[in-house]
Amino acid sequence: MALKTREDYLKSLKAMRPNVYKFGKLIEDVTTDPATRRTVESHARAFDAAHDPEYADAFTAVSDFTGEKILRWNGMMDSLEDIVANSVFKRWMYRFTGTCNGGLCVGWNSQNVMWNVTALIDKDCGTNYQERLKKWIIGAQEKGLVVAGALTDAKGDRSMKPSQQPELDANVHIKEVRADGVVISGVKAMICGVAASNEIFLLPGSGYKEEDKAFALACVVPRDIEGLTIVETRRPSDGRELEEEGWDIPETAITQAYLIFEDCFVPNERVFMCQEFKYSGKVIEYFTANYRACIGACVAGQGDIMIGAAALMARTNGLAAGTFSGKMVDMAINNETTYAVGIGAMAVGKPGPGGMWVSDSLLAHTNKVHVATLPYETKRLCQDIGGGIVETGCFPSYKDFQDPKYGKKIESVVKASVRFSAESRARAARLSEWLTLGAGVPGCMHGGGSPDGAKLVVRAFTPVDKFAQMASKIAGITEEITEPEKKKK
Amino acid sequence: MALKTREDYLKSLKAMRPNVYKFGKLIEDVTTDPATRRTVESHARAFDAAHDPEYADAFTAVSDFTGEKILRWNGMMDSLEDIVANSVFKRWMYRFTGTCNGGLCVGWNSQNVMWNVTALIDKDCGTNYQERLKKWIIGAQEKGLVVAGALTDAKGDRSMKPSQQPELDANVHIKEVRADGVVISGVKAMICGVAASNEIFLLPGSGYKEEDKAFALACVVPRDIEGLTIVETRRPSDGRELEEEGWDIPETAITQAYLIFEDCFVPNERVFMCQEFKYSGKVIEYFTANYRACIGACVAGQGDIMIGAAALMARTNGLAAGTFSGKMVDMAINNETTYAVGIGAMAVGKPGPGGMWVSDSLLAHTNKVHVATLPYETKRLCQDIGGGIVETGCFPSYKDFQDPKYGKKIESVVKASVRFSAESRARAARLSEWLTLGAGVPGCMHGGGSPDGAKLVVRAFTPVDKFAQMASKIAGITEEITEPEKKKK
Amino acid sequence: MALKTREDYLKSLKAMRPNVYKFGKLIEDVTTDPATRRTVESHARAFDAAHDPEYADAFTAVSDFTGEKILRWNGMMDSLEDIVANSVFKRWMYRFTGTCNGGLCVGWNSQNVMWNVTALIDKDCGTNYQERLKKWIIGAQEKGLVVAGALTDAKGDRSMKPSQQPELDANVHIKEVRADGVVISGVKAMICGVAASNEIFLLPGSGYKEEDKAFALACVVPRDIEGLTIVETRRPSDGRELEEEGWDIPETAITQAYLIFEDCFVPNERVFMCQEFKYSGKVIEYFTANYRACIGACVAGQGDIMIGAAALMARTNGLAAGTFSGKMVDMAINNETTYAVGIGAMAVGKPGPGGMWVSDSLLAHTNKVHVATLPYETKRLCQDIGGGIVETGCFPSYKDFQDPKYGKKIESVVKASVRFSAESRARAARLSEWLTLGAGVPGCMHGGGSPDGAKLVVRAFTPVDKFAQMASKIAGITEEITEPEKKKK
Amino acid sequence: MALKTREDYLKSLKAMRPNVYKFGKLIEDVTTDPATRRTVESHARAFDAAHDPEYADAFTAVSDFTGEKILRWNGMMDSLEDIVANSVFKRWMYRFTGTCNGGLCVGWNSQNVMWNVTALIDKDCGTNYQERLKKWIIGAQEKGLVVAGALTDAKGDRSMKPSQQPELDANVHIKEVRADGVVISGVKAMICGVAASNEIFLLPGSGYKEEDKAFALACVVPRDIEGLTIVETRRPSDGRELEEEGWDIPETAITQAYLIFEDCFVPNERVFMCQEFKYSGKVIEYFTANYRACIGACVAGQGDIMIGAAALMARTNGLAAGTFSGKMVDMAINNETTYAVGIGAMAVGKPGPGGMWVSDSLLAHTNKVHVATLPYETKRLCQDIGGGIVETGCFPSYKDFQDPKYGKKIESVVKASVRFSAESRARAARLSEWLTLGAGVPGCMHGGGSPDGAKLVVRAFTPVDKFAQMASKIAGITEEITEPEKKKK
Repeated sequence: MALKTREDYLKSLKAMRPNVYKFGKLIEDVTTDPATRRTVESHARAFDAAHDPEYADAFTAVSDFTGEKILRWNGMMDSLEDIVANSVFKRWMYRFTGTCNGGLCVGWNSQNVMWNVTALIDKDCGTNYQERLKKWIIGAQEKGLVVAGALTDAKGDRSMKPSQQPELDANVHIKEVRADGVVISGVKAMICGVAASNEIFLLPGSGYKEEDKAFALACVVPRDIEGLTIVETRRPSDGRELEEEGWDIPETAITQAYLIFEDCFVPNERVFMCQEFKYSGKVIEYFTANYRACIGACVAGQGDIMIGAAALMARTNGLAAGTFSGKMVDMAINNETTYAVGIGAMAVGKPGPGGMWVSDSLLAHTNKVHVATLPYETKRLCQDIGGGIVETGCFPSYKDFQDPKYGKKIESVVKASVRFSAESRARAARLSEWLTLGAGVPGCMHGGGSPDGAKLVVRAFTPVDKFAQMASKIAGITEEITEPEKKKK
Repeated sequence: MALKTREDYLKSLKAMRPNVYKFGKLIEDVTTDPATRRTVESHARAFDAAHDPEYADAFTAVSDFTGEKILRWNGMMDSLEDIVANSVFKRWMYRFTGTCNGGLCVGWNSQNVMWNVTALIDKDCGTNYQERLKKWIIGAQEKGLVVAGALTDAKGDRSMKPSQQPELDANVHIKEVRADGVVISGVKAMICGVAASNEIFLLPGSGYKEEDKAFALACVVPRDIEGLTIVETRRPSDGRELEEEGWDIPETAITQAYLIFEDCFVPNERVFMCQEFKYSGKVIEYFTANYRACIGACVAGQGDIMIGAAALMARTNGLAAGTFSGKMVDMAINNETTYAVGIGAMAVGKPGPGGMWVSDSLLAHTNKVHVATLPYETKRLCQDIGGGIVETGCFPSYKDFQDPKYGKKIESVVKASVRFSAESRARAARLSEWLTLGAGVPGCMHGGGSPDGAKLVVRAFTPVDKFAQMASKIAGITEEITEPEKKKK
Repeated sequence: MALKTREDYLKSLKAMRPNVYKFGKLIEDVTTDPATRRTVESHARAFDAAHDPEYADAFTAVSDFTGEKILRWNGMMDSLEDIVANSVFKRWMYRFTGTCNGGLCVGWNSQNVMWNVTALIDKDCGTNYQERLKKWIIGAQEKGLVVAGALTDAKGDRSMKPSQQPELDANVHIKEVRADGVVISGVKAMICGVAASNEIFLLPGSGYKEEDKAFALACVVPRDIEGLTIVETRRPSDGRELEEEGWDIPETAITQAYLIFEDCFVPNERVFMCQEFKYSGKVIEYFTANYRACIGACVAGQGDIMIGAAALMARTNGLAAGTFSGKMVDMAINNETTYAVGIGAMAVGKPGPGGMWVSDSLLAHTNKVHVATLPYETKRLCQDIGGGIVETGCFPSYKDFQDPKYGKKIESVVKASVRFSAESRARAARLSEWLTLGAGVPGCMHGGGSPDGAKLVVRAFTPVDKFAQMASKIAGITEEITEPEKKKK
Repeated sequence: MALKTREDYLKSLKAMRPNVYKFGKLIEDVTTDPATRRTVESHARAFDAAHDPEYADAFTAVSDFTGEKILRWNGMMDSLEDIVANSVFKRWMYRFTGTCNGGLCVGWNSQNVMWNVTALIDKDCGTNYQERLKKWIIGAQEKGLVVAGALTDAKGDRSMKPSQQPELDANVHIKEVRADGVVISGVKAMICGVAASNEIFLLPGSGYKEEDKAFALACVVPRDIEGLTIVETRRPSDGRELEEEGWDIPETAITQAYLIFEDCFVPNERVFMCQEFKYSGKVIEYFTANYRACIGACVAGQGDIMIGAAALMARTNGLAAGTFSGKMVDMAINNETTYAVGIGAMAVGKPGPGGMWVSDSLLAHTNKVHVATLPYETKRLCQDIGGGIVETGCFPSYKDFQDPKYGKKIESVVKASVRFSAESRARAARLSEWLTLGAGVPGCMHGGGSPDGAKLVVRAFTPVDKFAQMASKIAGITEEITEPEKKKK
């Protein structure tokens, strides 16, 4: 079967029911509306790459099920090589687009995680979820789907369980179990790449007890399923995307949406967990282990572009990029660190119960802490090299450059190098601004969970008592040095 | 004479000739136009404070010249107490407005710096600049002026001197010296607070030789002087300021403008340096010493608001602020560090040649390095506490909250604490976004010079050879350990 | 009266009763014994400086009581100028000796702190402690005493109050109050500079209640008071001090001792607090505020020597120090930061109840956090520049250099620059080792209290609720966003 | 053949010719002399582990050549699994000994590196080095040898090539090529673990030209080869090792030696590179790629022990380790970071020309930068938790504890928890001191090359121009933004 192309992809999006809103307005066609066309363009570049001989290895794979050549992000990851390919893929995508393309990675991770979890459930409960999942995956591979993944619920009041919320819809849940499927309602929040996706993979949260079993739900739905309203969030400087012309914002984009499900019917063949609340913890465990390993590649790829943007700024400012070599090395070290810790987490990982790779939790969560800090330093360095016009976007707007009264004067005085145009300097500055404090900033700190949560995992996997015993042995201490009874943490 | 009030201030701005542009549009009234009314509101809060018994000490002073009570920012700083008061004032202004109010501090610093420099010029050259300056200051005190300061030129190609630029207007310069004054042209860039100011104090750059003497100019001009066109720059998320309602951006603001001077006539009584190029270095030396000492208070004050915003987020997220106590202490340490290093620089300083205080250069430039780094950590911590909706502004827009179809549902699910409204959470989130990656971010890294420039000063003031000799003495080394001849830096 | 000289000082030490031990051995003469002569030499350099016209201003002062010229460290600090002079003095002392000279600063601080506290006690309790203190200070000024200060008790089990300890001697306390004085017993730990001191100023701990009143004691005793046994602690590489020749350790030193008081009688005229337990908190408050402000100068001075040592290493390694300019600037920034935050804390301070200056607690404790971290970076940079022979002292010993079989060969191959001798390289390396991981490392992290304790103070002085209210005002939040009831911290 | 045991190992060392010196004294038996017995003990623990079922997997392997079970460190690393095992092994060894055991890793790495390099040389030059190497390796496997690796030359004046040095012996070189072997002379510096080794693997430096070909030498020699004099360096607090009893230093140790070769004859079967200067760069490239990847495990293992030591200190100080949970997590994150970046470097690596694994240079050198910084933070945190007695070793010596006059008193007052003895607290404190500023500090910053050198590699592997092109594409810049001609770096 022929590999889906950019054109096929755009066509598939155009064919969908409009249900995405932003600023109170329904978006008729996500591929052309200024609020969404950039994220679609970002995702489309993955299709271009899949057809480009230079990148085909990274952007395509062979189906474990059919042996056909498929798009990389529809594949299974049952080996170290496969999951490393996920990181490589993500780094390239950030290099092509400068920002996050959630439709190409969260759904991908979700189908692999659920493969492992359905193995567990099917074994314990006699269900046939994995078989259903397999069929859906084969279909997704054939259709070359872009699939967003939706994990985070709106949650409501943090001090109450989902089932105790005054507003039950603060969390997506099963309202009715029918013979042929389930009816679901509730809100998922901060979901990336939905506007550019064909389908959405829903995963449950964790920490559920018997009384919360209605919230234990994994399934996949078309993006335009009846009953689903999608509201895109407002992000820094995204207002510029609505302008008809200019250079004040790049042509690529990330989106983050709220998904409002109201009595949506999901047929059984798309349901992979239904009330098995004991397994929702496993979903989170496997999901975060891989996600936090791989996200190191995302921020590395964006950091690569920040190095590039900084070089552009240096040069259009009339200087050599080489002047800032030390700072660029510091940026590179940040990039390679999150990339490498992620790869390290994968290499120390092993196949999960269904055979799909699960990265090492300790190292993956260590990476999450870096992903929540190092990119901030990289951004600072990018602004440091770029100068004042980057730091706060302190530069006249495109419209002011076009002004008949003073536009030419501005253009002539902001040209900071005889070698390059004022426009190039403006574009480099706006890119840098977008990357460091504009709409291009991805949610690397809290996306996929907070650094504080990651530290709890690091704590859990650090055997302090064992280390104390080893230290005792080296020190020649013979009594057992234990934690005091009461205050033990 | 009565101390100027908010109403007087607004009236004085309304009375001026419209010459401020943004997005290619002339702003008729800066006090009401959405693009500028917020920065005017910010500055107006200083007048409120001057009349508020709680803050009157910080916001007013007594004129050295007339003995009258004046607005603090029109005063002279001839003692440690006076210059520390500058820091205290700035910290409060950030606490009242969340961002930079350039019209209240750069002009203030400029008049003090020029007092010292005119003492030098008058002594060497027999001019009477200080007398002119004194008259102007007394007038400014009487009128309670808000005075922006303009230092940075647009500059053009960095590899050429001002006099060599293909576009001479890349730097403000004297085109003609007349008997009664000077005619000036050229562009100043990234000037804060102009839209909220009555006048603008122009200072020269440095490194000028005889052939650049036309660029050695210090003077003060009305903001609406004939021939001056002001173009406000576009900054992150400032597009939201143009919206008629909502909570997506606060009611205060910073502005940064390009000033295009075209054949502006400045009468002699407003000119305080005219071609005396040898003294422009002194202007920069005194200016940066004080500015970089005091800017520690600006970022401290903004950091205080970030602690507050983080506490609001924690609580409206349904948690206790106390949970994040450790992070808030880290934020506070960052704030107090830039504040204290600045005060330390002042305390080690001494009066300059005209009697106005000059902070210690080594410590002031040390502070500049911190001001270019620590606020980035503070912002990160603010986002860390605030969660995903702060990190990328990942929250539905005000318009979406009002949407008849889904607005109520969104409101009900984003309410994360039974104790507080969804609106409060939204406002706290938008404030945090604005402070950390929106229009509220001030130019603390490059404003008033880059951290790399500051490091050069630190290097110049660090006596490595003397330290090596002291170390030799302690180590018992008897030969002299000198730097190699050729490679000496 | 003539200012005490180095010779007078050494004579005064020689005249004392031997009561200092190390390695189980009684030290007969602290000025010549290898275990103590280096710290004595360090302190003696202060006397040299007091008589050196270049440093006389920093090392002498005029007595507030007698108008006589006195040694700086015997003076009162009742102005910003006086306390800044304390910092200047300490920075010079580290530059002269490379390490801590506790006998010149803790006693000095103690007498000033107690001046403020005795003012409080005398006022409330009708005692005449300040009068006693004044007499003692005048005597100390006349005799030019070196006075160690002893604050930290051995403490015993941390979970019990002093009065509950199974071993009462874990804390120094009053065993008997007689008409003419008190009898004291107990152990003070980690006391700097005792071996080089004439007297010791004892201060109480804090947190005492009625039942602990025996521990509320401030007094000053001769170092050789009957009943006092002093045990010097073993510190990294101090074993080298016992060697008779060589270059493996510098000729200056720090010492830290345990003071074992056993039924020592202290006459009333030397007692400045006796059971007034309510005031011991004030002692700690004033002591730490000044101590933590001033300690910034200590670590800055040591950092200066590390810059010097690094320059020596670079050059004797055959390179130019200029190659490492960026790292030296980073070191300098660390040095100036702790120095400046300290000065800032002083400048924001004010006179205490007795008129002696009290630095600002918030800024002083902010400094403590930096003093506990920045020097570690400075040390790392010193080792980074110095190379492998510095990092771990990986260099043949002096004895091996002298070995007839292979000494010459070693000398010839470790000579890394044709310009300098192998000995100079060895001395520079040993100095660097001593400064960064040898006996020269001062207790800057925990000395005078831990950074965790300092953070508690920062927390206490950070008005989170006020900042939240200010942030609310800027954000336009109208409801009051308070901390939840139960979880409030 | 039976796996070598601790006893066999000790016997093999005892059988050697004494040629190790320290402090000008010849060490007759390295297994019993106080200056070397600790490092021998450290290495011996590897033999224990190889025979311990719990650790046998990590400490043994199967020979690729003979199929026999061998000691892990004698094996070949031709797969990712094998090289990851190197990291796992090292981390365990640090956990068993607290410090570096160079005899178990540098020789191991060397034989693998030379396997790849001999493949290249043999192919190009028709030599049979690999065959010789293979024979030696098989022998080493059979004998269970401990083999130190010697890379760093004493070097002499850094501004001259080896062949230009006034002292030729500053670098090890071939003095004579005979039919049956080579005669070598010169000095290698800072070589770890020699005293505990059976043999030494010599590798050449790099950057050699034709005229330096005598320095292009790789071979392996018995530790007691005729003509070799070994001088152990003096390191912080290693003087304590000479004491006959006590707890002031642990029973394990690292050593670093100078190796003075004087006319040593090395037979051909032990020579694997002889004047092929063009390949010495490859040796360094492969060596550093693996070494800098694996060293992340060393510092991680030591960091584990620092967590343990900190827990011991907290508890013997009378507190709960849980109090310091946040700091321990920070320590753990540092440990896991260097470990994971190393594993990541391996996973991105690939087999070299001879089939042995070569880690990725970019990621390996990124790790080197972390290895040169993160352990310093870990040490600081260890001292932060441990308190003042750790920070500077400020604790009475063992001898003072035994003193009949005051020893008991000291013991009673330093007992800081009713649950644990004073001795345990002393031992924990001395361990912490030893780890952070004593003889246990390994050369992680400069060992195997400096962080500055690593940054040069990172720079070389960071394609700034490519990143600039990618950024241009995202920004919509159409002109090519190149580096200026002259200043290009």
